[in-house]
Amino acid sequence: MAFGWIDEQASARRRAGLVRTLRPRPADSPLLDLASNDYLGLAHHPEIIEGAAEAARTWGGGATGSRLVSGTTELHGELERELAAFCGFEAALVFSSGYAANLAAVTALAPHGSLVVSDAGNHASLIDGCRLARGTTQVVEHGDPDAVRKALGTAKGPAIAVSDTVFSVDGDAAPLAGLAAACRAYGAGLVVDDAHGLGVLGDGGRGAPYAAGLAGAPDVVVTVTLSKSLGSQGGAVLGPAKVIDHLVNAARTFIFDTGLAPAATGAALAALRLLRREPERAARAREVARALHTRLTASGHEAVRPDAAVVSVRAPSPDQAVRWAADCRAAGLAVGCFRPPSVPDGISRLRLTARADLTEGQIDRAVGIIGDTRP
Amino acid sequence: MAFGWIDEQASARRRAGLVRTLRPRPADSPLLDLASNDYLGLAHHPEIIEGAAEAARTWGGGATGSRLVSGTTELHGELERELAAFCGFEAALVFSSGYAANLAAVTALAPHGSLVVSDAGNHASLIDGCRLARGTTQVVEHGDPDAVRKALGTAKGPAIAVSDTVFSVDGDAAPLAGLAAACRAYGAGLVVDDAHGLGVLGDGGRGAPYAAGLAGAPDVVVTVTLSKSLGSQGGAVLGPAKVIDHLVNAARTFIFDTGLAPAATGAALAALRLLRREPERAARAREVARALHTRLTASGHEAVRPDAAVVSVRAPSPDQAVRWAADCRAAGLAVGCFRPPSVPDGISRLRLTARADLTEGQIDRAVGIIGDTRP
Repeated sequence: MAFGWIDEQASARRRAGLVRTLRPRPADSPLLDLASNDYLGLAHHPEIIEGAAEAARTWGGGATGSRLVSGTTELHGELERELAAFCGFEAALVFSSGYAANLAAVTALAPHGSLVVSDAGNHASLIDGCRLARGTTQVVEHGDPDAVRKALGTAKGPAIAVSDTVFSVDGDAAPLAGLAAACRAYGAGLVVDDAHGLGVLGDGGRGAPYAAGLAGAPDVVVTVTLSKSLGSQGGAVLGPAKVIDHLVNAARTFIFDTGLAPAATGAALAALRLLRREPERAARAREVARALHTRLTASGHEAVRPDAAVVSVRAPSPDQAVRWAADCRAAGLAVGCFRPPSVPDGISRLRLTARADLTEGQIDRAVGIIGDTRP
Repeated sequence: MAFGWIDEQASARRRAGLVRTLRPRPADSPLLDLASNDYLGLAHHPEIIEGAAEAARTWGGGATGSRLVSGTTELHGELERELAAFCGFEAALVFSSGYAANLAAVTALAPHGSLVVSDAGNHASLIDGCRLARGTTQVVEHGDPDAVRKALGTAKGPAIAVSDTVFSVDGDAAPLAGLAAACRAYGAGLVVDDAHGLGVLGDGGRGAPYAAGLAGAPDVVVTVTLSKSLGSQGGAVLGPAKVIDHLVNAARTFIFDTGLAPAATGAALAALRLLRREPERAARAREVARALHTRLTASGHEAVRPDAAVVSVRAPSPDQAVRWAADCRAAGLAVGCFRPPSVPDGISRLRLTARADLTEGQIDRAVGIIGDTRP
């Protein structure tokens, strides 16, 4: 019988306590949210919501086709120009998701005969990009520019190094300056995913590459998401104009996908404009993260010092991580729970995300609940 | 220098006349649109636009996280239940794009040691799904159930056959009954992409699998897009509940992607409800396609008889296809222009899409312009 093997996998998951289920949230959830990636608290901001609604009214419910056929509107162009200018790059290209942007950047920049050097802690979408690319991938130790340098030394054709700027699970930052130096020593390109950096790091939230002095460099390509700090949906690739032109011509997840919906495009544009007007939101997100970390470690939790807005707290086991997160929820706090197979190192943790709009009282309440429910 | 090889590729594309450029459209484009995949003319329908705006107001600009963390709302659940019921399947799972849904379905249903039998004309996203899957892929002749049967006979573990239901380029339908019989003879699963069938084929637009009597079958999985007939953005997988549960636990483009934005979810839900209320829209899209085909062939064009709402017209060469489409545009008609490398057979064509809301006068005008500009 077709799909019979699925039953065995499902049983194995049940036995291991690793079953995942969807928990739809209501519109008026009373939970204090430290689980989402809404770092600047913009997803529910009236200007972002009106940006979505106005774009739908003006441009329709969908883009109606591939960006190369009917799916590019002047609104997409506007977002691309403003996003590139904000982050300090020559050009940008918007995709329907950050996942699609990462698949595009890696596959289009890793042709036959090329080498991709990929950090062991990279996001699933970068890993899938490596697997889809025609080039050869070499995975190197997490956060290790010397390992990247060594790997690039073996390249026999074009080469790129690929890394998250801020790693999703532990919230630690990549050594961008070291990576860029390693790439330059070998004439290789650097491709970094700033999903968790945009809106949080760099002057006014311009991102980790901007903070590292890499914005606008001819050998640096950055991917971002519109669904985290910008409170919308979608992704983008930023870089030299010739790289963006190349993606338009060669990236399958661009050519063969429907364009980003006008509402998502309009919401992201509204968020970007608000962030330009209120740059202090970025610093506040980092401040909230540091406050969470300080108060958690002061109460004896093992938490990773945050480089951006993600705070990771160690849990003793997958089971206990699940129970801990559930107990937090029962006490009114939503936290993320990361465990195998979605953590590269097998360590289970609670994943807390700082939001720029959290009050001191909410931070205290969160820390209190995490302490009270500790396994 | 990093990315130096891109210059050579760009020059080669220029020499071959294969450069693609984005042409942003204004909100009030005066062009008659036969290029989009907005088959039912719903992208600009007030109910769909209000569905998007209302969802953004209630649920925010973005889903804020993975569907498994903070990104599942009751709105997602509502769309999934109504979509599954409409198409006749037990369960559904919504993704940020049809591309992501196809990557999910193929990779999650083709584990190590399995066989994927893939039609040579399949969409890029199914092909990328095959390349990402851990199973082995065997590509078979386009639209040939006997070839599928022969290939399935070589399977040494779980097997699936994968096909578009309506092929995007020529608009021809897959032999679904034959494919299902071939799969059943070998206990294999059938995975079909109904991107161009939903809203157009089957009773009231319930899709090609419904029309073929395959809806709700325990060995059939269907992917759809929310960005064509439903005028929004996103994709979904429909199938037995246990397959959907498996995807929740195993599909990387589900687990590691931000959930579909509320506005896109709401727009798709509004479109689905409108289609249930006005089922005649599906038949009208097919009727418009037949009228286009009849009038085009009557004027001596070589056009493929449409099985759904796509009408493909042969062009003599890539260059002439590009010029033909440009001349149509100059005369007020937007048509698609498909040419290498995005056509599997190397044949360039104009691609026309029927829309349910086209008037007889508009159909005549379109056929007139295509004739007047013929190379």
